[in-house]
Amino acid sequence: MNTFRESGAQFTELARSPRLWAFLIATYWVSFATYYLLWKAYKHVSGLRADALMSHDVRLKPEQFAILVRDIPPIPAGQTRQKQVDSYFESIYPKTFYRSMVVTDNKVVNKLWKELEGYKKKLAHAEAAYAQSKRAGKPEGARPTNRIGFLGLIGNKVDSIEYYTKKIKEVTPKLESERKVTLREKQQNAALVFFKSRVIAASAAQSLHSQMVDKWTVTNAPEPRQVIWTNLKIKFYQRQVRQYVVYVIVALTIVFFMIPIGFISALTTLENLKKYLPFLESIVNLDAIKTVLEAYLPQLALIIFLALLPKFLHFLSKAEGIPSESHVVRASSGKYFYFIVLDVFIGVSVGGTLFSTLKTIEKDPNSIVSLLGNSLPLNATFFLTYVALRFFVGYGLELSRIVPLIIFHLKKKYLCKTEAEVKEAWLPGDLKYGTRAPGDMLIFTIVLCYSVMAPIIIPFGIVYFGLGWLILRNQALNVYVPSYESYGRMWPHLHTRILAALILHQVTMFGYFGVKKFYYAPFLITLIILSLIFGFVCHKKFYRFFCDTPLEVALHDSKEIPNNNMEVIFKSYIPPSLSSEKIDGVPV
Amino acid sequence: MNTFRESGAQFTELARSPRLWAFLIATYWVSFATYYLLWKAYKHVSGLRADALMSHDVRLKPEQFAILVRDIPPIPAGQTRQKQVDSYFESIYPKTFYRSMVVTDNKVVNKLWKELEGYKKKLAHAEAAYAQSKRAGKPEGARPTNRIGFLGLIGNKVDSIEYYTKKIKEVTPKLESERKVTLREKQQNAALVFFKSRVIAASAAQSLHSQMVDKWTVTNAPEPRQVIWTNLKIKFYQRQVRQYVVYVIVALTIVFFMIPIGFISALTTLENLKKYLPFLESIVNLDAIKTVLEAYLPQLALIIFLALLPKFLHFLSKAEGIPSESHVVRASSGKYFYFIVLDVFIGVSVGGTLFSTLKTIEKDPNSIVSLLGNSLPLNATFFLTYVALRFFVGYGLELSRIVPLIIFHLKKKYLCKTEAEVKEAWLPGDLKYGTRAPGDMLIFTIVLCYSVMAPIIIPFGIVYFGLGWLILRNQALNVYVPSYESYGRMWPHLHTRILAALILHQVTMFGYFGVKKFYYAPFLITLIILSLIFGFVCHKKFYRFFCDTPLEVALHDSKEIPNNNMEVIFKSYIPPSLSSEKIDGVPV
Repeated sequence: MNTFRESGAQFTELARSPRLWAFLIATYWVSFATYYLLWKAYKHVSGLRADALMSHDVRLKPEQFAILVRDIPPIPAGQTRQKQVDSYFESIYPKTFYRSMVVTDNKVVNKLWKELEGYKKKLAHAEAAYAQSKRAGKPEGARPTNRIGFLGLIGNKVDSIEYYTKKIKEVTPKLESERKVTLREKQQNAALVFFKSRVIAASAAQSLHSQMVDKWTVTNAPEPRQVIWTNLKIKFYQRQVRQYVVYVIVALTIVFFMIPIGFISALTTLENLKKYLPFLESIVNLDAIKTVLEAYLPQLALIIFLALLPKFLHFLSKAEGIPSESHVVRASSGKYFYFIVLDVFIGVSVGGTLFSTLKTIEKDPNSIVSLLGNSLPLNATFFLTYVALRFFVGYGLELSRIVPLIIFHLKKKYLCKTEAEVKEAWLPGDLKYGTRAPGDMLIFTIVLCYSVMAPIIIPFGIVYFGLGWLILRNQALNVYVPSYESYGRMWPHLHTRILAALILHQVTMFGYFGVKKFYYAPFLITLIILSLIFGFVCHKKFYRFFCDTPLEVALHDSKEIPNNNMEVIFKSYIPPSLSSEKIDGVPV
Repeated sequence: MNTFRESGAQFTELARSPRLWAFLIATYWVSFATYYLLWKAYKHVSGLRADALMSHDVRLKPEQFAILVRDIPPIPAGQTRQKQVDSYFESIYPKTFYRSMVVTDNKVVNKLWKELEGYKKKLAHAEAAYAQSKRAGKPEGARPTNRIGFLGLIGNKVDSIEYYTKKIKEVTPKLESERKVTLREKQQNAALVFFKSRVIAASAAQSLHSQMVDKWTVTNAPEPRQVIWTNLKIKFYQRQVRQYVVYVIVALTIVFFMIPIGFISALTTLENLKKYLPFLESIVNLDAIKTVLEAYLPQLALIIFLALLPKFLHFLSKAEGIPSESHVVRASSGKYFYFIVLDVFIGVSVGGTLFSTLKTIEKDPNSIVSLLGNSLPLNATFFLTYVALRFFVGYGLELSRIVPLIIFHLKKKYLCKTEAEVKEAWLPGDLKYGTRAPGDMLIFTIVLCYSVMAPIIIPFGIVYFGLGWLILRNQALNVYVPSYESYGRMWPHLHTRILAALILHQVTMFGYFGVKKFYYAPFLITLIILSLIFGFVCHKKFYRFFCDTPLEVALHDSKEIPNNNMEVIFKSYIPPSLSSEKIDGVPV
């Protein structure tokens, strides 16, 4: 871009370009509006987090009284793990330490418990079916049967009620003894430590405990229902190494998914379809089908393609050794965002003209900015229809919940016999932040980047997010059941990525101005720097509050907790497979 | 570097180069030896830090019982600052909070106190002189006099003893009243908070206290003698802004000092001297002078030049708003290191041939690595003599302390009259880490980078650091008086920079191999990556221990502190200008 070396004559001519001036001013407006909203939103979410951290009233929140300790050093000779942990924390917090729970390897006991629960459910199902058959006319009823071989498809037929009752009687003592073995012998190098005071727990979670930084590492305890027990034992350096390995895998995946997406978007134009698959020509030429194909074919390919990723990313994030489910969701949604922006947005934008411009990039890698500025206008229609598809089909399905409804009625009619089974079939699950947030971020990025050059996308964006506000608010409040509470920790993560989308928008505009040889393009550099400063200030001002619990907040409304409640808090962390009235969850 | 596109024939020929193979292996050896030593040293210093943090015995260390609180929000209506701070911390730490000390603006009171101390000293001096004159024969003595005008040079002559006695009587009540005003009205937005327990103090210094991250920020309290009181009031965002402004100034200074250093090293060769200053030719051609000039002229210029910087950098670091002297020294020595490596080492290395290669760099900025590889061998002699000069002259002066000795004897003979004055003249000061460490780091960098190509520098390096170990150990233990204790926090800082020097060495070797078209140069890339990993592991394993006090260490050997001792701890933080038996240091 030799824009700045233009002669004076050209300069005055260019400076008069009213369209580009309007673009420049629009970019400024968009940016400042985004700053304002982001700032307000951060403040608002901060307040919500503080409320959630302060509130004592809704129910006792056990995670506020506990810390998670990992990387406990080997047990000294002549001690047990339990004693080691207790004496360590009792000496540091002589007055406020309540008790500790050493994490155990629950693999076997979990398996037995699941088996038992399965038998119990099947027994209830069989009994309900038997009762139903009695009501249905036959007074003696039809005793249900099942096959005991592979998947209930082969093997001998047996009476279900008798069989499952026998099985339950068999498994129960096994589970009992396995519980004892687990609690006594399968203790691992991690523990949950409980304190009588919220303030001390909040302060303990933030303090360095051991001189060896890689021993006795502490963090806030995750909520009981979102602890990932199997990850707790992973050691300090292993976590670091795992993290980097996962990053490398994700980076490789991002780089090598560029190729298929480029192919998809280059292949799925009607012209290409006709050229490469000539036998389709007669169908494709029908006007109705042609219109539908032209509009929705590439987008459908894209949506299906994107649906495959989240599971893989969730698996990778879990493998990093993160101790809580909400953190895993956060991490995987972050990775998904990079995928979406790098592969879908940039990949499709540039990929539409990829084959023709590949050589240009190879020769001059710096041309990528101007390339984006050049190719973005060409793909406006594609993304317009993508956004439209998302809110017509996506929100339509979301609001009507037609698929879950059909599935529920089918299940109710043919599968469910007991009350519990009907309830389970009805269960709507949670909001699925992990995939929803990056999807919305993609729409946000698209709308932002096209807003100035193809303003027709703005109403689409407004409709998408406006409807989204109405519909998802309703769904979140009235339909879905949150499966954990992360105290607003998702927000800083979204904030950063919204800001990244804004900066991408500014860079794209800069590239576009460069392509158009607009003399005043450098004004946008100021804006990019401003965005970075804004991000920095927000990070400094708010971020730490989202990582740690401030003592002043933990102090709020805190009274002496009676020992009785402390026991409730302690017990809420006992995994269901280990909890039983007899054993009482107390490691011996 | 098209090294990897060489033909097979060339490859086998090059692979046989025994000299370069030896260089490669030597680089590996140097690197591994450095890793080993750095690791050992980090462990050793960690142990020393732990000992220092644990020890109760030598004396009560007040900083272990205190935290520094900054950015206290505005005083609520109807409260005092003191009450605000007390009630805030008393509610969070009901049992362990001892009391707090609000920082005041001591500018006026400090000035008065200095005035008073000056008069007291002068009075003692005058009395001693009078007594001496009595002993010297005249029984009635000669009453000393002084002029009361500018610097004691003009104005009326008065009797010193009477004059200073009068002045002391005048200033004392002023100081008393100013003390009261300061304590009551000049309270600022910072405070020192004292706890009865070391563990709680250590934990409090690491915890977030306020929901607003930029309010009630806490850190470890610095030692009383190294608190920079005037910096404590600087606000959160102002500190951030100041820091970045200082970084920019330092970066600009580094960039624009390249030019004078380049000139110095290009001008101060004998040939240039003769060419540009032809009238010197007759002197320069004398053999004795020629030798001396050739060897030491450029180095002397360099040493004088470098002596000007530290004060400036210290000033800049202080302006960042850092609360403790040792941290300022650390920050300024870090800046000095960048100066030294970028300007002296790289500047001189490349600058010796700067005028001829300037155009090459401008055309191809990537050539800087191979340029370094090319030009380093040419400057070996320069740095060899630089190292020699440093240990001959530097250590000679250091060990003999001939300059301080002369100054002391001159002072003793002509200026000092009282015992206190003699003591002050004898005071050796502290080790001056801020300039000494970067200087040694420069030698280390030089020796490391030249070690392989010009192994003659190795004995010089060994002598420098060997003598340094002997001499500075003696000086540190027996001569200098440390003016503060930083609990080993200088080490991680040095560690990082030693590692940076090692990586510079590896990069230089890589450049040198590139210049020599050595086919196996990529082996060094592995080594560079290894160095980065080593640095990362060290940082993860040790660094946090040097920032925070682990609770397990703070717990060690801690007993209940009697209130009596707590009062001693509290009092040790009262600045001398505010401490008096009457006022008792208690803000009303």
